[in-house]
Amino acid sequence: MMKKVGIRDVATAAQVSVTTVSHALNETHASRVNPQTRAHIQSVAAQLGYSPNKLASGLRTQRSNFLGLVSDEIATTPFAGEMLQGAQDAAYERGWLVMILDSSMDLELEKHQINFLLQHQIDGLIYARMFHQEVVLPAQLAKTPVVLLDAVSGDGSNSSVVPDEVAAASTATTALIEAGHRRIGFINNRDDIPATHARLHGYREALDKHQIDFDPSLVITAAADASGGRVAALQMLAAETRPTAVFCFNDRMAMGAYQAAGSLGLRIPHDLSVIGIDNLELIADELWPGLTTVALPHYEMGSWAAERLLDEIEGKAGASQLHQKLDCPLIERASIAPPTPG
Amino acid sequence: MMKKVGIRDVATAAQVSVTTVSHALNETHASRVNPQTRAHIQSVAAQLGYSPNKLASGLRTQRSNFLGLVSDEIATTPFAGEMLQGAQDAAYERGWLVMILDSSMDLELEKHQINFLLQHQIDGLIYARMFHQEVVLPAQLAKTPVVLLDAVSGDGSNSSVVPDEVAAASTATTALIEAGHRRIGFINNRDDIPATHARLHGYREALDKHQIDFDPSLVITAAADASGGRVAALQMLAAETRPTAVFCFNDRMAMGAYQAAGSLGLRIPHDLSVIGIDNLELIADELWPGLTTVALPHYEMGSWAAERLLDEIEGKAGASQLHQKLDCPLIERASIAPPTPG
Repeated sequence: MMKKVGIRDVATAAQVSVTTVSHALNETHASRVNPQTRAHIQSVAAQLGYSPNKLASGLRTQRSNFLGLVSDEIATTPFAGEMLQGAQDAAYERGWLVMILDSSMDLELEKHQINFLLQHQIDGLIYARMFHQEVVLPAQLAKTPVVLLDAVSGDGSNSSVVPDEVAAASTATTALIEAGHRRIGFINNRDDIPATHARLHGYREALDKHQIDFDPSLVITAAADASGGRVAALQMLAAETRPTAVFCFNDRMAMGAYQAAGSLGLRIPHDLSVIGIDNLELIADELWPGLTTVALPHYEMGSWAAERLLDEIEGKAGASQLHQKLDCPLIERASIAPPTPG
Repeated sequence: MMKKVGIRDVATAAQVSVTTVSHALNETHASRVNPQTRAHIQSVAAQLGYSPNKLASGLRTQRSNFLGLVSDEIATTPFAGEMLQGAQDAAYERGWLVMILDSSMDLELEKHQINFLLQHQIDGLIYARMFHQEVVLPAQLAKTPVVLLDAVSGDGSNSSVVPDEVAAASTATTALIEAGHRRIGFINNRDDIPATHARLHGYREALDKHQIDFDPSLVITAAADASGGRVAALQMLAAETRPTAVFCFNDRMAMGAYQAAGSLGLRIPHDLSVIGIDNLELIADELWPGLTTVALPHYEMGSWAAERLLDEIEGKAGASQLHQKLDCPLIERASIAPPTPG
């Protein structure tokens, strides 16, 4: 059987985001996409044989299957929506609906929400965190199929999906190296979370691979927001031999690096190249020049979690759990240029 | 009976956002708030007698009541989470849970989601839109209590809550006038949506009230993002007698005005004052200097919708529908200063 063409396939082929495809192929939202892009996406979708009518035939005839998705803090997380959308789209293509509950990190509320879902004959649950972390699953869920989204459990007893953080940082660093940079600063998060350690690892791995010595003075940690990135970048750029390029832990910190460069009269990318991680469109698209960054695959993680959970529920999965790390693609905009001689 | 002190009361008294209060009073998230702010919030909460344990006693003993919330595009809307959180907190304080479904503007999916909720004995539904607009309610919902969130219906047959757009724009314009500005540009959205017209109205109302003549050359419309704001601001600032202050339709457009000012060597706020609308923290907090803006009350709208819906379900509401416009408070940061003489 041929694999059904999905919205992700169209996005990849058209080199746009899943959200843009979704808007372009939807009557109500099409006006948000510029006409050229829209025509391009429609043409790609037609070539691939993608049908924007996502309704699985099963939904009309089967009982209404539903999955629960419990997450910690949708309200304060700008890319939460992409994960939810990915899970929902994948479930819907197979005839399932997803019920979303936001526990706001209140463990008592979470317990009630999960009990409620179990009472309502939930068939499985996606247990989501809004950034990659280790979790302990509530005991109530011992007998329910559960897949962890952007999280892993210490005992590995549930399938899980997270971004490949090491590869993401290596991709970012390599993009700077390939543009000709050798003196590359890394502004890292100061929080003790998996991404902090893994991204430092990936940065060093890329340097090693290109025979560039690791210089600890080129790594500064700070709060993972624009203000933290700005202060760290100002410090880094005041050094006698300043880096010609900066890799920032995330796009918010990269926004701070832009502010630091601006205040020092350095132009991006001519005087300083910058790259982030996240592809948070509200920042990466809106900065001027646009921020080249490495996308965290939030939509794809949500989609993977729903697919895997349904495979487990429907008996299509093998006996062993899967622990998936998803690729993080480079998204090129305009913040990288070769270093200026001298 | 005394009204119970809610999280909003603490936020107002402490002059911080509801999200910040939520984090400060939550063990797991407290580290996200700086220690001084946290101590301040804890002291205010103690003074008011607010208990961060939100669990209504009813939830333990009653049957699990639940509300549905169907919205159009959580995935692509940065402040969607605040609305969901407001609805969820208000419902939870009264012993109810909220199930969230995102229709992604797919009307067929929305129909299935609503059928599904109705089959699962939903007692009421919040029908949400992610920006203020007019909607036609699906026919399936004719017999279910429904409150419209950030939306109104043409026939007025359901209670609804939206921001007071005219007052928001008047507040923004007045903040610039009170700082001493008389030549105030308005960069408006070019989309034909209620906010576009209402905010122009509010801008003119504030000018009138202060005997400042309306000058049509000071109003430019553009796409409602940073790039649109940048192009419009560049045009406005190139004029012979440029404005000393700019009111932008939203925070993203204000980000574009910052970029335009930067490229012209104008410092904010000394050479140009800027104000937005939204209080989108990812932008308003992260810009440098911080953006003074008018907050759209997303959390409060979500909360109002849930309260109203529960009043209707529990027979505590009067016979007539309410159409509520909520206040939009000024959030002062650092982008407004008096005009420079000459």
